[in-house]
Amino acid sequence: MSVKDFTQSLDSFLIAFEERLRQVVKSDVEFVQLIEEDLVTAGGKRVRPRLAFLASSALGEVPHTVELALAVELIHSAALLHDDLIDDAETRRGKEAAFRKYGNAVSVLAGDYLLSRQMALLAQIGNMELVAMCAQAARMLSEGEVLQFQMVALADYSLENYERIIHGKTASLMQLACEGAAVLGGAPNVVREALAQFGARYGQAFQMRDDYLDLMGSSEVLGKPAGGDVREGKVTRITLRLLETYPGEVEDIFKRHGAQKGDIERLRELAVQSGADQDVIQAIAQRVEQAIATLRALPYSASRDELEALAKRELVRVS
Amino acid sequence: MSVKDFTQSLDSFLIAFEERLRQVVKSDVEFVQLIEEDLVTAGGKRVRPRLAFLASSALGEVPHTVELALAVELIHSAALLHDDLIDDAETRRGKEAAFRKYGNAVSVLAGDYLLSRQMALLAQIGNMELVAMCAQAARMLSEGEVLQFQMVALADYSLENYERIIHGKTASLMQLACEGAAVLGGAPNVVREALAQFGARYGQAFQMRDDYLDLMGSSEVLGKPAGGDVREGKVTRITLRLLETYPGEVEDIFKRHGAQKGDIERLRELAVQSGADQDVIQAIAQRVEQAIATLRALPYSASRDELEALAKRELVRVS
Repeated sequence: MSVKDFTQSLDSFLIAFEERLRQVVKSDVEFVQLIEEDLVTAGGKRVRPRLAFLASSALGEVPHTVELALAVELIHSAALLHDDLIDDAETRRGKEAAFRKYGNAVSVLAGDYLLSRQMALLAQIGNMELVAMCAQAARMLSEGEVLQFQMVALADYSLENYERIIHGKTASLMQLACEGAAVLGGAPNVVREALAQFGARYGQAFQMRDDYLDLMGSSEVLGKPAGGDVREGKVTRITLRLLETYPGEVEDIFKRHGAQKGDIERLRELAVQSGADQDVIQAIAQRVEQAIATLRALPYSASRDELEALAKRELVRVS
Repeated sequence: MSVKDFTQSLDSFLIAFEERLRQVVKSDVEFVQLIEEDLVTAGGKRVRPRLAFLASSALGEVPHTVELALAVELIHSAALLHDDLIDDAETRRGKEAAFRKYGNAVSVLAGDYLLSRQMALLAQIGNMELVAMCAQAARMLSEGEVLQFQMVALADYSLENYERIIHGKTASLMQLACEGAAVLGGAPNVVREALAQFGARYGQAFQMRDDYLDLMGSSEVLGKPAGGDVREGKVTRITLRLLETYPGEVEDIFKRHGAQKGDIERLRELAVQSGADQDVIQAIAQRVEQAIATLRALPYSASRDELEALAKRELVRVS
């Protein structure tokens, strides 16, 4: 396939995806419809649907790729709705958070509605192994999110917890998008395993970069003030390093949730001074390399190239 | 089967159910484990698992009845966790509401965890039609709950909305428990339809009775002050009738959410005076009769008798 054909085929897929999404989330209960419309029009980067498409087209023609992409995106969207309330997020995807309009209650229920629609898609696809995989990804997602909350509540900071959180929150669904395509395409085990690993490593890099930028990014790039995680008491890889290197000072900052003027700037300063920022960039680079290495199990294709390019972009954005 | 054997077999089923439930919800994330333990030890009447058992044993021997019962109960439990926050409920099943201990955030996520475990059970059962049925029941549940919220927000009161709410909130899962057994047992369509109808009618009667008692019951029986629905702005069948008969006075009470001294007593008085209370009792009796009539499609068994007795109990509890 030429690059132009490939780009057209990705574009058509994403258009079909948006159209199907609109249909799938439709409800005759007005408040459900309002929230789901918000979600559809808000768009977002559709990273997970893209992954499903790329994995699928790297394997040739895989049935039900749109349904797979929808199922994964619906789990993700439900998590965003349930997370709006958790994070007390100012904005999601640049739109006013749903719960500010209709209350936490309706957000949670609208998330449940999306999960029910995701199950309906799975029934339509008709692959029981995929049901088990979605169950597992959703499990890791919810456990990861609770663990994040627990880590804050108990000040139970560790790299092990952090790794589990980013895997659960982000990597598990990216893995599902890629591995799901392999399962639906009946790919051999070695290819399935490669795509699963690609999704997992890419997803970990993705979340680590998000977390890095949350502290080290400029507020212009972030579209919000830096240091949001610190203010929520969330420790990420970079602040874990700082807690080790400067325990007293950094613990104090976390205890007051970065509320004192200059706290966030001080953490950024310490990160550069100690090299904690470079440590995280290296860790991201390592995941990106691991992700790319797994792609060798796939034959050459424009899709495989694009998967590689996607992974590499995680590096450009931090350095 | 003798009555004694039947009782023993129901008891064994419920013991096995509790044991499996404990295993299924186990998590190595401490905060997840704490909430799920609360749920398991709180117990509850296990109405839905009972229905699954009775429907199943009325058909002879049905595979995966425990897994079906668990899947239905987990959807129900997730709804309770998501509902704790919605209703700002004082207590659930006599235990302190989970969210008071760990915050709304963890309750919502722990509910998501239960839904993921339910999906894992469905994958284990391996029946794709049951996946579709669970998706449909979960959809009706979330839409019904949002509709209830919408009815309060828009003062959009109608019997049609009320019927949809009670079906979604309660009857859809009871139907799932009964019809699910028929599907797993490969029952003929006429039997499947009968069990589906039994579950739906019984569930509607069950919720109507709950709603009736919420206003008309004594606070000793309820274990909380009567009139909780009025205070949350929720209109039920009995108050719908009162809004028709005494529009001005009852609308005023709803506008102030029954906050004025004597409001709830006044509604109880009006219900008796207008016969609205008897209207609801008759409506419940009708659903109970419809439920029982569907059982004729099943051969005689101790289980069928017990299903009939369950339905009849909804009448005793109101009159």
